[in-house]
Amino acid sequence: MPDYRAPLKDMQFVLHDFLSISDQDIPGYSDLDRDFTAGVLEAAGRLASDVLAPLNAVGDTQGCRIENGVVRTPDGFKEAFDRIRDDGWTAIDCAEEWGGQGLPYIMHTAANEPMVSANMALNMYQGLTHGAYSALAIHGTDAQKALYLPKLASCEWTGTMNLTEPHCGTDLGLMRTKAEPQGDGSYAITGQKIFISSGDHDMADNIVHLVLAKIPGGPEGTKGISLFVVPKILPTEDGGLGDRNPLSCGKLEEKMGIHGNATCVMNFDGAKGWLVGEEHKGMRAMFTMMNEARLGVGMQGWATAEAAYQAALAYAQDRLQGRDVTGAKAPESPADPIIVHPDIRRALMDQKSFLEGARALTYWGAMLLDRGHRKGDAEAEALVSLLIPVIKGFLTDKGFEGAVQAQQVYGGHGYIEEHGMSQFARDARIAMIYEGANGIQALDLVGRKLALHGGKPLMGLMERIKAVATAPEEDEAFRKTILDPLKSASKDLQSAAMLFMQQGMKTPNVALAGSYDFMHLMGHVLLGYSWAQMAHAARRALAEGRDVTFHETKLATARYYMARQLPATKMHLTRIESGAEPVMALEAANF
Amino acid sequence: MPDYRAPLKDMQFVLHDFLSISDQDIPGYSDLDRDFTAGVLEAAGRLASDVLAPLNAVGDTQGCRIENGVVRTPDGFKEAFDRIRDDGWTAIDCAEEWGGQGLPYIMHTAANEPMVSANMALNMYQGLTHGAYSALAIHGTDAQKALYLPKLASCEWTGTMNLTEPHCGTDLGLMRTKAEPQGDGSYAITGQKIFISSGDHDMADNIVHLVLAKIPGGPEGTKGISLFVVPKILPTEDGGLGDRNPLSCGKLEEKMGIHGNATCVMNFDGAKGWLVGEEHKGMRAMFTMMNEARLGVGMQGWATAEAAYQAALAYAQDRLQGRDVTGAKAPESPADPIIVHPDIRRALMDQKSFLEGARALTYWGAMLLDRGHRKGDAEAEALVSLLIPVIKGFLTDKGFEGAVQAQQVYGGHGYIEEHGMSQFARDARIAMIYEGANGIQALDLVGRKLALHGGKPLMGLMERIKAVATAPEEDEAFRKTILDPLKSASKDLQSAAMLFMQQGMKTPNVALAGSYDFMHLMGHVLLGYSWAQMAHAARRALAEGRDVTFHETKLATARYYMARQLPATKMHLTRIESGAEPVMALEAANF
Repeated sequence: MPDYRAPLKDMQFVLHDFLSISDQDIPGYSDLDRDFTAGVLEAAGRLASDVLAPLNAVGDTQGCRIENGVVRTPDGFKEAFDRIRDDGWTAIDCAEEWGGQGLPYIMHTAANEPMVSANMALNMYQGLTHGAYSALAIHGTDAQKALYLPKLASCEWTGTMNLTEPHCGTDLGLMRTKAEPQGDGSYAITGQKIFISSGDHDMADNIVHLVLAKIPGGPEGTKGISLFVVPKILPTEDGGLGDRNPLSCGKLEEKMGIHGNATCVMNFDGAKGWLVGEEHKGMRAMFTMMNEARLGVGMQGWATAEAAYQAALAYAQDRLQGRDVTGAKAPESPADPIIVHPDIRRALMDQKSFLEGARALTYWGAMLLDRGHRKGDAEAEALVSLLIPVIKGFLTDKGFEGAVQAQQVYGGHGYIEEHGMSQFARDARIAMIYEGANGIQALDLVGRKLALHGGKPLMGLMERIKAVATAPEEDEAFRKTILDPLKSASKDLQSAAMLFMQQGMKTPNVALAGSYDFMHLMGHVLLGYSWAQMAHAARRALAEGRDVTFHETKLATARYYMARQLPATKMHLTRIESGAEPVMALEAANF
Repeated sequence: MPDYRAPLKDMQFVLHDFLSISDQDIPGYSDLDRDFTAGVLEAAGRLASDVLAPLNAVGDTQGCRIENGVVRTPDGFKEAFDRIRDDGWTAIDCAEEWGGQGLPYIMHTAANEPMVSANMALNMYQGLTHGAYSALAIHGTDAQKALYLPKLASCEWTGTMNLTEPHCGTDLGLMRTKAEPQGDGSYAITGQKIFISSGDHDMADNIVHLVLAKIPGGPEGTKGISLFVVPKILPTEDGGLGDRNPLSCGKLEEKMGIHGNATCVMNFDGAKGWLVGEEHKGMRAMFTMMNEARLGVGMQGWATAEAAYQAALAYAQDRLQGRDVTGAKAPESPADPIIVHPDIRRALMDQKSFLEGARALTYWGAMLLDRGHRKGDAEAEALVSLLIPVIKGFLTDKGFEGAVQAQQVYGGHGYIEEHGMSQFARDARIAMIYEGANGIQALDLVGRKLALHGGKPLMGLMERIKAVATAPEEDEAFRKTILDPLKSASKDLQSAAMLFMQQGMKTPNVALAGSYDFMHLMGHVLLGYSWAQMAHAARRALAEGRDVTFHETKLATARYYMARQLPATKMHLTRIESGAEPVMALEAANF
């Protein structure tokens, strides 16, 4: 099984050299100095390496199973989850009032990275719980908060999100699950929900389901959807555990990956639930958690690919096969390690330059969320809303691609399950699908986010990028290899956005047919923008004489991204410019 | 489970409108008229739909297992294999002398397509056998031919290829399996081989292993490798079955996909084998079968994606979710089928335009192989050698991508195993790895094939493409949407090839670092070239008033490929032009 080690230096570089978090004027950030974050991340990394990573293959092989009506998680999951819980990892950014540590969301994000890399399926149990916590923290009544938040913060109880039904995924307006008022303030929830991650399991005393359902007589479509809290076991007056609520896991899905997470068909048979937030405003309640949830899934995509990359790198440095064409590198061995071969390097550099850029973009997104929530900065909130579909859609597409590329480095050994490379690819695959399939992210981006606030967030972002790309630069090589490519790529982004604006009203299909390419185009520009800033940061560190090899490696990796990844923007622009006609030319029946 | 129907019209279009096979001056081709091929392909399609496709999920779910030392295939595989055998599908292009039908290889290829699409894992048993047949047909002694070829042609006995060892895959020079002469003309084979597809099973009376091994005292490295035929059960003098040879399947690998095929660790414990071809010339013997084997794997990549595409298309036409932004298409239903959404169309058109282009390229490759073998046309032989790494590497990369895209159309339903979409992606994944991982294909392409015969095959190909792209064309729209994009893309190919030639000698790493991009660049140009010719063919058919909708769809699909796939060439060229420096910048230790 591949070892995993949290890339602490890279994580610290992003937090401190790229984002300068302790200098940010965001409440709670001034405490986040290098030593503090190093302590937190080292501890998270140790847990990930020592406890979670060794269970990753176990989870994949055993999966979850129903025994006498009880959903059993794989061997060792319960003990590991206890460790996560006992060490306080579940409540990093939860309010102190509810037992959390009250740290910024960026610390939750950074500390979660190693746990996701090491064992995505296991980490999902706390991830979903965190989402349920957030929903109730924002929309719950005081009584709901007092009852649920301490339990969810500690993961003594875990949470779920129940949205999808067999016939309705993206289009929640088609929902059939109904919630009938019982006259005592509660509702009877009846219906079937599918694809419920962490829907049932044996690792917590209770499971708190957040369920979208329709109250009979309400408006049609998504305007008639309300959000309910529906606990597996009904709490008693004193907060203890009472009767079993009539809801159950009807089936565990057999999936391509994340076998260690129980994906349940949930049947609600008149289960008792309570309204969260206002009647018929359930969609709005879901939307308020969406940014965090989607950022988290974006990270799943690349954090799984990070673990795969580490394994591929180790294999490439170890596996002997063939000779360096420019002369033997290990003449004492029967062959050179395959890392000498340029095409293996290409594959590793593709992964490395993507992963480090993805981390930078994701952590930046987390900082913007903090700036929005902790400081009430509406501009930051609007900007991060623009970034979220790209963080989710682009980073999970590329994360999966990276995991597949890492698997490829292993050759035939990557295809057999023994080495764990297949699992990384199979696990990473889900991140492209759930929490809004990536096509929906692209639609959200061009159909909603580009025009948000009259396009101001986009224009603001373009200004930021332009400021970096066109800043006076005396180092000619730096300008040519780092800044000019970013400038060129950002023009492609601008051209695409202009095209959508000009044609969008007349022929909306132009933007819709180009939406996926736009998401990738913007993703590349954002990673290029991140890399340009990281290159600046690396240069500053070098000027200070800090860790020369590490920061020169950063600069070389930045140059790689600019030279070999960023040129994709032109392809995406060309595809976009071809318009809707090629895409929509066929009648549906003529395919 | 998704239905599969052989795309007979598309297959016939490639054979007759694109390739005009019955007009080719290749021995055996004049009989291949439309009616004849229709009959063969319809029958193959029926077998695929009725017998093989229903077993695809069974094979995936059950996999193979060892029971009391016997490798058992999934339920129904034996009966289906009997049907394939009894109906004569295993020997289409085998010599009549050995019980085959003596048809051209292109008919073997076309008839195999539906069988691969419907059940790749099952079809591999006959695929490997066909490879063993070819090796013995070319390199075997008369006695070996008489003994083995009739049994292999009928698949009464099946075949395998034993190359890989735990420590050596690509670099066969490191091989340890040894073959000691026994003085009676036989050799004692001792060693372990891994990843042996169809290595052992219960569907044939005997298994004929072709094994690469070293005769002690021979030259070092690949120059000391010889090829041996090593039957599982030793044939008696009269061709019957005698004693068990000391060789066995030590383990079945757990794999990401193709579970229905038994991937074995094979242990040879002094097993009796006989030399095939000359001593120490085993690599050469393997190379002679390589073109066919790699073309076959290229087809596995896209043929599996074809089945996935058919399922995605059916789902997109059936699944109701959301509304067409330009107005409801199914106002009587609660929502429109998702095929109305431009981004779903994009995904389907990406797949469709790739698949039809891939079929054209592969069948053309098969025709060139026939022209080489049946007519002794050395130019065709050289050209197909140039195409093979692209057919294998590019088409399997894109095939996997297509299968993943098809899975994505299913949303969450694509991730659960129930609908079979995960299996298509997992199965297609292996084609990128075995028979020379795709990085090796790229290396073969730029390191060996470009310079073949002084670069003449490449120049000849460029001339062919130029002739199509720049031919006088009165139809302005056709020129602009079909020919001009091909012209532009072919210039990118030329620029990349020129760069490699100029820098190749001085700095071989430029070509090596750009090899993967070159393979994709050339793949796109070849598909563009195929599409331009198919567009011409469709226009001819339309002028004759034949099947208007079908041929107009072909034209629209050609335009799609040109507008939205072919622009990738510029990105690949830019990556290539960035040279080796970004790729090789880091010391191996600094990753």
